[in-house]
Amino acid sequence: MTGPTVAVLGGGQLGRMLALAGYPLGLRFRFLDPSPGGPAAQVAEQITAAYDDPAALERLADGAAVVTYEFENVPVDAARMLERHAPVFPPPRALETAQDRLSEKTLFDRLGIPTPAFVPVDSEEDLRAGLGRTGFPAVLKTRRMGYDGKGQMVLREPADVPVAWRALSDGAPLILESFVPFNREVSIIAVRSRTGEEVFYPIVQNRHEGGILRESLAPAPGPTTPAVQAQAEEYARRVLEATSYVGVLAIEFFEVGGRLVANEMAPRVHNSGHWTIEGAQTSQFENHLRAVLGLPLGSAAPVGVSAMLNLIGEAPPLAAMLAIPGAHVHLYGKSARPARKIGHLTILAPDEQAIIPSLSRAREVVRNSG
Amino acid sequence: MTGPTVAVLGGGQLGRMLALAGYPLGLRFRFLDPSPGGPAAQVAEQITAAYDDPAALERLADGAAVVTYEFENVPVDAARMLERHAPVFPPPRALETAQDRLSEKTLFDRLGIPTPAFVPVDSEEDLRAGLGRTGFPAVLKTRRMGYDGKGQMVLREPADVPVAWRALSDGAPLILESFVPFNREVSIIAVRSRTGEEVFYPIVQNRHEGGILRESLAPAPGPTTPAVQAQAEEYARRVLEATSYVGVLAIEFFEVGGRLVANEMAPRVHNSGHWTIEGAQTSQFENHLRAVLGLPLGSAAPVGVSAMLNLIGEAPPLAAMLAIPGAHVHLYGKSARPARKIGHLTILAPDEQAIIPSLSRAREVVRNSG
Repeated sequence: MTGPTVAVLGGGQLGRMLALAGYPLGLRFRFLDPSPGGPAAQVAEQITAAYDDPAALERLADGAAVVTYEFENVPVDAARMLERHAPVFPPPRALETAQDRLSEKTLFDRLGIPTPAFVPVDSEEDLRAGLGRTGFPAVLKTRRMGYDGKGQMVLREPADVPVAWRALSDGAPLILESFVPFNREVSIIAVRSRTGEEVFYPIVQNRHEGGILRESLAPAPGPTTPAVQAQAEEYARRVLEATSYVGVLAIEFFEVGGRLVANEMAPRVHNSGHWTIEGAQTSQFENHLRAVLGLPLGSAAPVGVSAMLNLIGEAPPLAAMLAIPGAHVHLYGKSARPARKIGHLTILAPDEQAIIPSLSRAREVVRNSG
Repeated sequence: MTGPTVAVLGGGQLGRMLALAGYPLGLRFRFLDPSPGGPAAQVAEQITAAYDDPAALERLADGAAVVTYEFENVPVDAARMLERHAPVFPPPRALETAQDRLSEKTLFDRLGIPTPAFVPVDSEEDLRAGLGRTGFPAVLKTRRMGYDGKGQMVLREPADVPVAWRALSDGAPLILESFVPFNREVSIIAVRSRTGEEVFYPIVQNRHEGGILRESLAPAPGPTTPAVQAQAEEYARRVLEATSYVGVLAIEFFEVGGRLVANEMAPRVHNSGHWTIEGAQTSQFENHLRAVLGLPLGSAAPVGVSAMLNLIGEAPPLAAMLAIPGAHVHLYGKSARPARKIGHLTILAPDEQAIIPSLSRAREVVRNSG
C-alpha cells in the first residue's frame, strides 16, 4: 500500500500538521518551499525552490494525486500552472480572491455577508474621501500579503491620515475599512469535498494580541453562540458554493451585538482550527486531505471543550507543558524568534467548568516564556 | 527548537507510530532497520543495516538523547553496546528476559504472577516427561523469536508428541506449557518513566485468530473487568519495579474464572494498545516517549469506548473505512501480503451501546477484504 502522494505549496507548520494527519491514511507528501529545513521538511520530502520556479513546480506535481497549499500567498500563476499536471484544490480562483482584501470583501458583499464598510485606496485623496464613508476610527490595510497584523494601521483622527499614508503607501494598493466595535472575534472552519459534501466545525472564540492569534476557545462559549453558529455556517456555505470550493476554508468574523461581520477568509487550514487535532472527532488537517482527495469527510463534532494557546517567540519547557492535565503539546521544529509562532498547546477537558484549572495553569506557563 | 533525537532499533509500524506521536513534541527520530523503505523510513531518517553492525549502531546513537526499540527480537548485545553511547530504555535486561519464554515465565513465577505450568524442553524425553506435569492439551513453543502464533503447536494426545517434536525441534530450545482453558484474553499496557512515575491503561479484551490479534475492545467490557483490572495493574507493577523498567510494557493474560494467568510480555509499545491513539487521553506511543525521556507521563484514561481491528493481508478501500462513523484509519505503508499486519482501524464511540452499529459495519468492511 504505497498510497497517493499529496503535493503541497508551502512547507511551514500547517504543512507539517497536514503530513502528520495524512500519514495514518497511508498518504505520501511532497512539499515545495523556498526555505530549507522548515517544519514540513523535517517530516517529509521537500523541494527547496522558489514558488515560481517552473521546473520545481513540475517536480512537485509529478505523479501527485492532488496539489494543495498551506500558505495563501503563493503566486496564483504557480497554482494555475500546476493544474496542467494534477488537480489543484482549493481552486486557484478562491486563492486569488483571498489574496486580495478588496476582492475578498467584494465577494462577501455580493453574497450578502455583512462586512465592515470598505473602499479601495490608491492615493491620499482616496483615503480622505474614503474616511467620509467609514468615519473614524478606521483601519487602513495593504490589500495583499498582510498577516499576523502586519500591513495595517488604525486611524483615529484626521491627523493620522498623512502618517498612515506614509507608513503603508509604497505603491501597493490599499483598502480602508471601518473599525468594527466588536464584542468578540469568532471564526469558523468549513470543509467542502470534491463530491460536494460539507461539514462545519463549531465556531471558535479568538483572542488576538498585536495582531497575532493568542488563544482560541472551542466551541465558543456564551449564550449567543447557537445563533451565531447558524449565521457562520450559512455565510461559509455561501462562499463554499459560490467558489466551487474544495478543502478547508476558514472565515474570521467580528461578533457585534449577536450578529456576524466578516473580517477575512483563508483558503487553507487555519490556526484557529488547531484545537481540532485533539478536540474534534476529525481534525481540520485530516478533513482537508479527505476533501481534496474526494474521500468521505469525518465528523466535525467536538469531543469536549478545548483551549488552544499559541506559543509565540519561545517555547516554555516541555516538561512544564506536559505536566498540565489535559495538555497536548505541538512544537513545529522552528527556532525561537520574537513574534514567531513556534508551537501551540491544546487543553482538552470534558466541559467548560473542568477546563478552568488547566487553562489557568497553561496561561501561566505560556506567559512565563514567550 | 530542534528537539532531542530519539534513536529506535526497528523500523516497522510501531516505529512509524512512535515518530508520528513524537513529532508534535518537537522530537527528531532516527531508525535502524535491515529493510529499506519500511513504515518508519517513509516518515523519518533510517539507517539501513543489520542490527549487529557496529558502525551502524554507532551512527544510530550519535547525538541521540535516548535509544529505544520497537521490536523485541533485536540482539541484546546491540542494546548493550548502544548503552556506551546513550541511555537505552527499556533496560536491555528486560529485553533479554522477554526474548526467552522460559526466563519470562520464570520471572512471572518469582514475582507471584500466575502462569500456565511450564517446563523447558530440550529433548523428546523432556517433552514426554513435561507432559506428565502439564497434562493434555499442552502447547509446545520455541523459547525465542515466536510471534503472531508462529513457532508453536498444540498437543492434544500422545500421538501428537512425535509430530510436534519433529515440527519444532531443530536445535532451538523449547518450552512446554499447559493449555489454559480461558474465558477470554486480556492485556494491559503499563508505563514507567525514568523518574519512577507509573500509569496503567484500562485492560483490553483481545481476540486472536490463527495466532494473530484481530480485534481489541477497550476498555475490556464485562462484569469481571474491575477486579481483573486491579490484578493486571498489580502484576504489571511487580514486573515494572523488579526490572527497573522504563517505557511501555505490555502483558497479555488469560482470564480464567475471574483470575488472570500471564501468557507473555512485550517490552515495547503493543498492538493491543493501538486504540490509545484516539481512545485514550495520551497514546501509548506518546507515553513511551515521555517515559524514556524522563518527561511527565500523560493520563491513560479512556475518552470513550474503542474497538481496534487489525487490517491483515490487504486493506479495504480507504473510502469504505472512512465512511464508518467514528472510524480512524491507520495504514502502515506496507504492501499487501497474506497474514501481514498492514494497518488498523479504530472505532471510537461514547459508550458500549453507541459503538455497536459502527463496529458491526467495521467488521463487515474488514472481513470483505483481508
